[in-house]
Amino acid sequence: MLDVCLLGTGGMMPLPGRWLTACYTRFNGSALLIDCGEGTQVALKSAGWSCHDIDVICFTHFHGDHISGLPGLLLSMGNADRTEPVTLIGPKGLERIVNNLRVIAPELPFRLEFIELENPEETIDINGYTLKAYTVSHNITCYCYAQIIKRAGKFMPEKAKENQVPMAVWSRLQKGENVELDGRTFSPDMILGPERKGIKLAYCTDSRPVPSIVKAAKGADLFICEGMYGEPGMEEKAKEHRHMTFIEAASLARNAGAKELWLTHFSPSLVRPKDFVEQARIVFRNTKVHKDGAAKTLEYPEK
Amino acid sequence: MLDVCLLGTGGMMPLPGRWLTACYTRFNGSALLIDCGEGTQVALKSAGWSCHDIDVICFTHFHGDHISGLPGLLLSMGNADRTEPVTLIGPKGLERIVNNLRVIAPELPFRLEFIELENPEETIDINGYTLKAYTVSHNITCYCYAQIIKRAGKFMPEKAKENQVPMAVWSRLQKGENVELDGRTFSPDMILGPERKGIKLAYCTDSRPVPSIVKAAKGADLFICEGMYGEPGMEEKAKEHRHMTFIEAASLARNAGAKELWLTHFSPSLVRPKDFVEQARIVFRNTKVHKDGAAKTLEYPEK
Repeated sequence: MLDVCLLGTGGMMPLPGRWLTACYTRFNGSALLIDCGEGTQVALKSAGWSCHDIDVICFTHFHGDHISGLPGLLLSMGNADRTEPVTLIGPKGLERIVNNLRVIAPELPFRLEFIELENPEETIDINGYTLKAYTVSHNITCYCYAQIIKRAGKFMPEKAKENQVPMAVWSRLQKGENVELDGRTFSPDMILGPERKGIKLAYCTDSRPVPSIVKAAKGADLFICEGMYGEPGMEEKAKEHRHMTFIEAASLARNAGAKELWLTHFSPSLVRPKDFVEQARIVFRNTKVHKDGAAKTLEYPEK
Repeated sequence: MLDVCLLGTGGMMPLPGRWLTACYTRFNGSALLIDCGEGTQVALKSAGWSCHDIDVICFTHFHGDHISGLPGLLLSMGNADRTEPVTLIGPKGLERIVNNLRVIAPELPFRLEFIELENPEETIDINGYTLKAYTVSHNITCYCYAQIIKRAGKFMPEKAKENQVPMAVWSRLQKGENVELDGRTFSPDMILGPERKGIKLAYCTDSRPVPSIVKAAKGADLFICEGMYGEPGMEEKAKEHRHMTFIEAASLARNAGAKELWLTHFSPSLVRPKDFVEQARIVFRNTKVHKDGAAKTLEYPEK
């Protein structure tokens, strides 16, 4: 299962009662943060999570509202005595930008590891899950992300016996390892059924609606997507600022066959985003507007 | 009169319900901000003030909790269509540090002007008030500030007549200008009584208690001072981390002959600072522990 928390729902600037858009997920004790604007560390605490277990921080892009909270978060992680390295993932230039910001956080008790994205589509296997990153269309280089938890097939003792797999190696094979024993090599598929449907979370902000987002959100259990503007008549403004309307986000969710859509990254001028969700629901029924800190546990579809 | 708002009372990291320590003042339509940690711009909005009229930002020092909110604030000031330059004041290295942080706020519609403090004591006349900066004693270079509003003497028409000052120049002289007319030079003292007591605000964080702070807070109408630790038995910890206890701050206020002391910059571990104010009040009666956003208007003592 994957715990997901939408820490904030704001765009551009943090507001009283509305943190900047950022997403925290937790899988197998390892947390991932996507984006870290000013105040994200407070949003994290408010939502009841800790900064201590964040092993990976992904950035969609380098506008201030998506990265300005990084130095403060790193300092707090240091103050919480973290010593394990933290992996930072983001568009090309990440290391230079982070090193600039670290002028006020020069000493940390842990190492930073950088993964800079360079291709339109990238795949990173890390901490037991897969991250897929896709370029989207903003006014600077920007990526959306999908976090994918694969799920191995069911353990089938009869298959194990058929393949003459000794019981001593079953548990390691179930963990996905290949095992050598007495000159034979055993692989997980010798004791497991076909791979089962896992869990998929997709996260996209800031962008115009483009096909790569549909790809990222394909069949997602939860698709968190920007909807900067909810009011009717904001289509041109959305185009001009390279953002989306609620309805554009809902169309992406529908085209991707996502199960559920959470809108986020609301314009500061959009005081009550809930007032405008119905129009988006006509396009994609399961569209939701939550407040900051909305959380959900995504479970495997079959037990 | 000088409006003063203590935007936050926290030290080290922003917490839910406790912003980082920063002080906003407003004199004659021009606002001054001292320190700008992560979330200060939200604290400002929460307290009902605007970032738009901030003409000067002073930094005590360059630890993250005192400057991490700067890029976000500058971006918001830009979004609010500010075009007038903003003056930044702080220890040596200010321009380099701010330029590093501006990697995520490279384009602003206004100019930044830098004043780097180099001497143990500096005086800056700006926007109708005087700033005095004094080095204090932290683990990196740190300054405390006094904001001083001078008040000219009363207008005395009989003195003006005695000095044969033509009525046509009275109003300019009252504004503090020297005026030349018909080959004579007129100065404000020719029509004004002796300078009257003005307004003084002093602000100090982070430091051990040292004599320069007493100098800064001498006769202050309001002295805002760090008290990182309130609980008994924290004296050694305060020394180790180069901070102060409530009682040490109260001693400074007493020695300076300040009128009122507001404690701030509470350790995240100090959950209810109010519980510990009584001991400090024994040392300095008018010691106060306020919540974030506490505000006061300092008035001239005589009408």
